[in-house]
Amino acid sequence: MAKQKIAPVAKKITETAKDIHAKILKSKSPTMTTPIRSLINIKYQAKTGYFEMLGKKKHRTLTVSTVKTFAQSLKMMSLAKELINANDMATKREAYYISKNWGKAGFSEQAESDTIMDDVEAMFGVNREQLRFTPEEKGGDVAGRLIVIDTDSKGKKLKIDCTRFGSGAYSIPTEVENLRFESQAKFVLAIETAGMFQRLVKYDYWKKTKCILISIGGVPTRACRRFIRRLTDQLKIPVYAFVDGDPYGYFNIYRTLKVGSGRAAHLNKFFCVPSVRFLGVTPQDIITYKLPTHPLKEVDIKRAKDALRNDPFVKHHKPWQKAIKQMLEMGVRVEQQAFAKHGLDFVVNKYLPFKLKNPSKFLP
Amino acid sequence: MAKQKIAPVAKKITETAKDIHAKILKSKSPTMTTPIRSLINIKYQAKTGYFEMLGKKKHRTLTVSTVKTFAQSLKMMSLAKELINANDMATKREAYYISKNWGKAGFSEQAESDTIMDDVEAMFGVNREQLRFTPEEKGGDVAGRLIVIDTDSKGKKLKIDCTRFGSGAYSIPTEVENLRFESQAKFVLAIETAGMFQRLVKYDYWKKTKCILISIGGVPTRACRRFIRRLTDQLKIPVYAFVDGDPYGYFNIYRTLKVGSGRAAHLNKFFCVPSVRFLGVTPQDIITYKLPTHPLKEVDIKRAKDALRNDPFVKHHKPWQKAIKQMLEMGVRVEQQAFAKHGLDFVVNKYLPFKLKNPSKFLP
Repeated sequence: MAKQKIAPVAKKITETAKDIHAKILKSKSPTMTTPIRSLINIKYQAKTGYFEMLGKKKHRTLTVSTVKTFAQSLKMMSLAKELINANDMATKREAYYISKNWGKAGFSEQAESDTIMDDVEAMFGVNREQLRFTPEEKGGDVAGRLIVIDTDSKGKKLKIDCTRFGSGAYSIPTEVENLRFESQAKFVLAIETAGMFQRLVKYDYWKKTKCILISIGGVPTRACRRFIRRLTDQLKIPVYAFVDGDPYGYFNIYRTLKVGSGRAAHLNKFFCVPSVRFLGVTPQDIITYKLPTHPLKEVDIKRAKDALRNDPFVKHHKPWQKAIKQMLEMGVRVEQQAFAKHGLDFVVNKYLPFKLKNPSKFLP
Repeated sequence: MAKQKIAPVAKKITETAKDIHAKILKSKSPTMTTPIRSLINIKYQAKTGYFEMLGKKKHRTLTVSTVKTFAQSLKMMSLAKELINANDMATKREAYYISKNWGKAGFSEQAESDTIMDDVEAMFGVNREQLRFTPEEKGGDVAGRLIVIDTDSKGKKLKIDCTRFGSGAYSIPTEVENLRFESQAKFVLAIETAGMFQRLVKYDYWKKTKCILISIGGVPTRACRRFIRRLTDQLKIPVYAFVDGDPYGYFNIYRTLKVGSGRAAHLNKFFCVPSVRFLGVTPQDIITYKLPTHPLKEVDIKRAKDALRNDPFVKHHKPWQKAIKQMLEMGVRVEQQAFAKHGLDFVVNKYLPFKLKNPSKFLP
């Protein structure tokens, strides 16, 4: 499984290296080409549903001044190939330390090695995980109607049944590229806080509604976003987001999950979940469910106004503009635990069932 | 199981409430007594191995000026009793929102309800989890030779085998009070970073050494500390900590795991793991293993000097004083991934096996 998918990357690396080698033999200056990774090269693509790169490229030709970064890029490509062949992986930080053995091509700061890694990633048009570089952060927790299919170190298939963890959960690994899934679930619910996740687990919410609960723990990590993306690509079921009703929940959490981030546009196509829709908590929910609120902070107001003016995602979606304006007029934010005012079971027995009658009304 | 353990708390709550009720009927002013929760009431107890409270108490007598907090404390006790009886739980944040229905006894900020909760917890000499208030944060990840015994919502026993999670892991729930364990493991390894945890999982470290790997993800949460504590109380096996070699790793992570924190001394006896010992990374390891380092930052130096001067734990343990002085003299810190310089398998095949030959040499 893993090898079939990853082999083409190893092949691409070899081809690029061969080209460079051939040019050198002909005494020509070799060149590497990578897409420009900055905001000037980004557009929100409504059709695909995420931030995409425009075609701008940068070229790195081997000269006296580029010799070190050129060598570092080649060493990084070589490391990726070794990892693929050995079926191993390295975290970004480990890759930095490995470079300490590259002589003069060693990195003096991890920031440098991260940049070269991003370049290599963009150059081959794959995500870092396919080069076998894995993130440092873990990915989130899962409970409910899902069987994750993984392999042990001997390649033996393991079926991990996420209905069998009691009050605990399945913790998503940092590398999810090789996982497969079996499920009869009707939808996925992505939840901001560990507290609300534990509440829904406690009340058997996934049993009653045949769903998969995922605790994304704040802004979702790459591994978590990729996991949800691969899950929904394979299962073809809807994903709903249930987060705090504040600008942080709307833009930093939900929008990142849905369309990706502006800073990493070269890999949004792997990490975004364009099908996710926003269940709540919306500003309208505050009125409908008479929820206790907190006043918006300065930073909330600033972030909301910025989003209205500059965020291509918000500018594309009228319902979001309406919701944000409503929030600014009301001057308040709401936490997803606020439903506890009406009793601990209100969220499970009233709010979620009522909302889920009309997913078509969810914010895009 | 759960009920046997928790019933005494419900009984204590009822008794306290009855006393107060009886006093009121006799037209006397009722009083609540709680230990003082601040540094003036704390001592490092070498014998038990954690920060403990001295005997200082504060008394809250019902008067015109204390009527609100008095009422809030009673409502909080009552909520705890309801949760225990219903076999339910509430996060701190949920408890705050529930209070919105307490009329004039409602809290206007979560900080207020947290304080009252801490008072009630200290008053009954139990940890908050026994009152059924659970933390917001999740607890850490587990892989290896451990079977966690939990129950589903119908009370049916569930055995969760932590050898069966592939590249993933068992995610510790926020409430661990009712979990039980089965294991033939020889030791527990508590690991600071998710990246190193994933490395050890990838290389089957727990299989080779018959151990339990726990990713504590930086400063361990209450749930994680309590989990490790309950695990080691039951299994009677050693716990070793493997964290970055810097003051943050030494004091914020390791010391918190071992002796608890100064701010929450009334519950350290539940949350500390006095038996944990420090495997590495030590300043001496930098020399022995020729590890790449980073210069100490200002804040590192300040924290280290503060610890030498003021930290009762450090002042008690000479080997720690020596290690900290060595670090200050060398002027460098080291990350646990630094072993990757010698190859990705070095940590698994060389460093850990070598260290584990002599656990008696570990820092206390």
